[in-house]
Amino acid sequence: MFRNPEESATSAVLALLLEVSSTPKAGNVDREHDFEDLKFEHFLTSAVSAFPFFLKTAKEKRLHLLQAVIAGKNFGINTNVHFGAFLLLFPLVAVWESESAVVAGKNATNFLKSTTHFESLEILKAFQLCEPRVLETKEMSLKCNSTAEEILRKRMNVYEWMKLAPKENLIAFEITNGYPRSVEGASFLLSSNDRANDAIVLLYHRMLASYPDTLIISKFGIEKALEVMSLAKKAIEAKDFNEFRRLDEFLLKNRLNPGTIADLTASSIYLAFLEGWKVEA
Amino acid sequence: MFRNPEESATSAVLALLLEVSSTPKAGNVDREHDFEDLKFEHFLTSAVSAFPFFLKTAKEKRLHLLQAVIAGKNFGINTNVHFGAFLLLFPLVAVWESESAVVAGKNATNFLKSTTHFESLEILKAFQLCEPRVLETKEMSLKCNSTAEEILRKRMNVYEWMKLAPKENLIAFEITNGYPRSVEGASFLLSSNDRANDAIVLLYHRMLASYPDTLIISKFGIEKALEVMSLAKKAIEAKDFNEFRRLDEFLLKNRLNPGTIADLTASSIYLAFLEGWKVEA
Repeated sequence: MFRNPEESATSAVLALLLEVSSTPKAGNVDREHDFEDLKFEHFLTSAVSAFPFFLKTAKEKRLHLLQAVIAGKNFGINTNVHFGAFLLLFPLVAVWESESAVVAGKNATNFLKSTTHFESLEILKAFQLCEPRVLETKEMSLKCNSTAEEILRKRMNVYEWMKLAPKENLIAFEITNGYPRSVEGASFLLSSNDRANDAIVLLYHRMLASYPDTLIISKFGIEKALEVMSLAKKAIEAKDFNEFRRLDEFLLKNRLNPGTIADLTASSIYLAFLEGWKVEA
Repeated sequence: MFRNPEESATSAVLALLLEVSSTPKAGNVDREHDFEDLKFEHFLTSAVSAFPFFLKTAKEKRLHLLQAVIAGKNFGINTNVHFGAFLLLFPLVAVWESESAVVAGKNATNFLKSTTHFESLEILKAFQLCEPRVLETKEMSLKCNSTAEEILRKRMNVYEWMKLAPKENLIAFEITNGYPRSVEGASFLLSSNDRANDAIVLLYHRMLASYPDTLIISKFGIEKALEVMSLAKKAIEAKDFNEFRRLDEFLLKNRLNPGTIADLTASSIYLAFLEGWKVEA
């Protein structure tokens, strides 16, 4: 349990930093490699510039996600770095007093039910600044120009809006359902005896083997996402970090970037911190 | 120039993160290698857990260095990670409104003249929690038990106390003399056209070639420190990052860790941010 808003904000930013730093992490930026247009430094910058707005969110119990995205822009971040991870973390930070990971997940979903359509509009605005790739959806797409009007007209809060996302959208599912995968991820970290880097690497690949990545579906379709899952399963079974490295090469060569699994890794780390997990362990 | 305390605190933490991440950096932890007892993750944790106390320092104009060290401890940091860098950065953050790097350096030194002996005692306490290796000194050593009594008796503020440090103490010199090396380091970054990582790597090795490292002097004496300087000079002249890697191997093998040069790199990055430097550049 966090003792104050500061510990919660620190844990959110640290979760982002540990996620991106842990290596090897198949198909994603880590401390050992960058993408051409997305570098390790961008992740550091985006994470740290969000700190004041995590802190504000914890203190005021209002999502300051849009301000975090703007702060990143002011520090030179012009690409989508953390939109998905922010969407997972901000509601959790808003309910930082929760006494356990399970309760925090439930509280965060309930918190979203208490938001207004103004917060939905802010998230839409943050999305438009980030321009992440998302799933095509019939109604209320993040991409669609009429979405703002719809949100306004129906006075749709963040929960109601995210409920409309397709079921393959792991993040929308997570935040509207009590964060089940993040809670499970936190348990995994808490029960691990490995050093932080290795525990996070294992968690990441376990999740990669368990859930079809939203970002991969949006770029290449569900078949490709299922193929990545099955490759990750094999790598996990080999219990050899070199298998993760080989998978990494394959994913990078094919531009398969499981960004949503990375986001879920970050929310898992945050919830592990809430339960007293330490980097030293 | 920073627009608010948040930008200053973000820049201080980001300076620490970019310093430790930049690679190759001869003799220090970077994103490509850890020390046995000091890992990349420890630097991330120590830097981020200091954020709320940088922010408080910017807002209240009072050094919250001790609280930053305690916050790191609460997140599992039990080794000396950032004591030197904190000593450089906290006074700069306290004067975040300064309009340029030069002015910030001067203001920070003046700020230290306005501190009281209570702040000296807090820094001493922070030091004792960190246990960094420091230079032997005849009077008012950080190591000596009677130092607290002396500070109390003479009501010695941080400036007066740091003025007693031996001249080889680069950090004490820096903070009592308007931060000349950090200001110069910031200029170097601002005039560089390289990407952030490479500009920081070059800056680090330039400083390594220019100043005998305080930490190396304290462990191995001045001759060793001069030898490291001359090796760094040669590596710089070769204009080849592989030379930095070779120097790195040599320093690591001989346990030569120029920690003070890393600290000065961080304060240089912070001052570059103050002047509008961007990671994207």
